[in-house]
Amino acid sequence: MSDAHSLDALIQALRRLPGVGVKSAQRIAFHLLQHDRAAAQSLSRALSDAAVNVRHCERCHTFTESAVCDTCLDEKRDQSILCVVETPADQSALERTGAYMGLYFVLMGKLSPLDGIGPNDLGLKKLFDRACDGEVQEVILATNFTAEGEATAHVISEGLKARGVKATRLARGVPVGSELEYVDLGTIAHALVDRR
Amino acid sequence: MSDAHSLDALIQALRRLPGVGVKSAQRIAFHLLQHDRAAAQSLSRALSDAAVNVRHCERCHTFTESAVCDTCLDEKRDQSILCVVETPADQSALERTGAYMGLYFVLMGKLSPLDGIGPNDLGLKKLFDRACDGEVQEVILATNFTAEGEATAHVISEGLKARGVKATRLARGVPVGSELEYVDLGTIAHALVDRR
Repeated sequence: MSDAHSLDALIQALRRLPGVGVKSAQRIAFHLLQHDRAAAQSLSRALSDAAVNVRHCERCHTFTESAVCDTCLDEKRDQSILCVVETPADQSALERTGAYMGLYFVLMGKLSPLDGIGPNDLGLKKLFDRACDGEVQEVILATNFTAEGEATAHVISEGLKARGVKATRLARGVPVGSELEYVDLGTIAHALVDRR
Repeated sequence: MSDAHSLDALIQALRRLPGVGVKSAQRIAFHLLQHDRAAAQSLSRALSDAAVNVRHCERCHTFTESAVCDTCLDEKRDQSILCVVETPADQSALERTGAYMGLYFVLMGKLSPLDGIGPNDLGLKKLFDRACDGEVQEVILATNFTAEGEATAHVISEGLKARGVKATRLARGVPVGSELEYVDLGTIAHALVDRR
């Protein structure tokens, strides 16, 4: 492949994607060039369009192409509840449940001291200002139930408590459709404590 | 993510890559837009450059940007041996050994009746013509040692035999550095039969 410079460049560029090593990059490049050049061209356009057009909503930080996203502009949504999530994918999962009609604040990350991501990088100041705007009555902390997600929820809940804003956390418990035998012990312990 | 149309388009385009499902596509899109827009732009350019510039070598079918690839043009290489491989990645693995100085014929695939890929799709006619050009003395079959690779090697070797051209196959045996205990039985059986 020594004299196909654009092929080598393509493999190098693919390797910068998360989770793509040199073998996957070769396989993807081979597939696109051999079987699907139309997909290569459309991915090329999609990448450049998205890199130029997608920005962050001024109110909730999620990805949008307008100054303020449709969700934040939707007057039918409950303006008094704010749900804090880590990523737009988490927001999208909550939306798909159809069970939440409030607004969002998307952190676009989580506290991660090892990666040098502190409260300022997540825009927590902006979140606290918003929570204190008089309209928000409750902040639901829906960060992930991982060590970093829990730490993030803890820091935010402390900050909200200091400002006198009510903070709640998604319930922990046994997932729907699961058999107790296969559920991890920490989850069962939480489900016992939070029984209703 | 309802009003970020270029984001949705990007996720759809990423899903067309082999081995990328909807979760990976979301994760890749999020990573690029949140942390590495430069990578998105450079991948966009690399994709479109490669889709436009990369074509197949007229002699060996591998990817190249010229009419004939550097390897085929290299007069120092042994013109009497032709090594048949499935993909440019296989060719590149053979090149990295430094143990082969002949020429190549890259099938750009393998016989695969279930996918509707027969002898005509692989350009076997062209391979046979080339093997009979008077210059080639030996064809080394270096397709993979999988069911489809073996079938491909078998069909090619029958065709070459009918034309009176010598065909050889890469040796099967115990991989260098491996312990017998962990080598599969089929491999050990082959290594016994082919002992030297």
